[in-house]
Amino acid sequence: MSNITRYGTTPRWSDLVIHRGVAYFVEVPEDPQLDARAQFEQLFRQVEERLALAKSSPKGLLQVLVYLPFPEDLLLFNELWDAWIPSGHAPSRACIHTQLAAPGYRAELIITAACDSF
Amino acid sequence: MSNITRYGTTPRWSDLVIHRGVAYFVEVPEDPQLDARAQFEQLFRQVEERLALAKSSPKGLLQVLVYLPFPEDLLLFNELWDAWIPSGHAPSRACIHTQLAAPGYRAELIITAACDSF
Amino acid sequence: MSNITRYGTTPRWSDLVIHRGVAYFVEVPEDPQLDARAQFEQLFRQVEERLALAKSSPKGLLQVLVYLPFPEDLLLFNELWDAWIPSGHAPSRACIHTQLAAPGYRAELIITAACDSF
Repeated sequence: MSNITRYGTTPRWSDLVIHRGVAYFVEVPEDPQLDARAQFEQLFRQVEERLALAKSSPKGLLQVLVYLPFPEDLLLFNELWDAWIPSGHAPSRACIHTQLAAPGYRAELIITAACDSF
Repeated sequence: MSNITRYGTTPRWSDLVIHRGVAYFVEVPEDPQLDARAQFEQLFRQVEERLALAKSSPKGLLQVLVYLPFPEDLLLFNELWDAWIPSGHAPSRACIHTQLAAPGYRAELIITAACDSF
Repeated sequence: MSNITRYGTTPRWSDLVIHRGVAYFVEVPEDPQLDARAQFEQLFRQVEERLALAKSSPKGLLQVLVYLPFPEDLLLFNELWDAWIPSGHAPSRACIHTQLAAPGYRAELIITAACDSF
């Protein structure tokens, strides 16, 4: 499959997979010891870096599934999210409360983004 | 990203995002005060309207993730779903029971659909 | 929508939907009576068969959402998953613990894969 580009590939997952101008990735904050606010801010920085790797940006987000294991984090998450999303470029978004396989994380994002230079 | 088309964009999300002939959207019933049956019927009407906006139809559904927060709704949801899906055009579908971030809603659909006129 | 290819279409879902070189499918083990290990092994065989139908292979996996209703299955699932994924070709992956609509199943996979011969 020479038309698939992967970054950060381990035996379990790749950090980023690109195919036909679409980037697929999943992101959790690097440091689950941080408090919720710091985790969310870190998470958005990581998404920006990943999008840059795909020659895209937050304006290229197509769809984001937000998994928030702690329902009490929703208001804060939304406040930071709204400030982070570039005006006029919000993606399709769903948000559910569910238990993540990895403990400690306050959020997990499943992302589909456009990266048309690939 | 001039190759992305968005509808109903707020600071938090877009109602519909289209890229390279694929439509991404998330739908909950407009009125969470309705009972389950009425919510599901309303939800399917909304999906039809959204697909029409993308110059698509229920025959263009590719994949639908169904989130049903109330497990007891499954039988009714499936009955209405089966009657709604055009014969011979059912999408790939997953269904889980999970807590939605927005309370009161009896169902949330995460949808990927074909809209090849874009 | 003549540019959509479906396999195993019922009134409720299709086993496989292909559009513009991307395959969408959802997989649960055929036999929910099996123990966790046997279910996971069966599940991976089914995914291989489905990918072959799409003229793809496990190397074509783009993104996989793993739903594990029993958190205690995670270690075993990951062990078998890591051995199954072709070296250097891991997809983007998310894993959550949530209740499946169909009881008895130890795992459900929501899959996006490349199948560029379509």
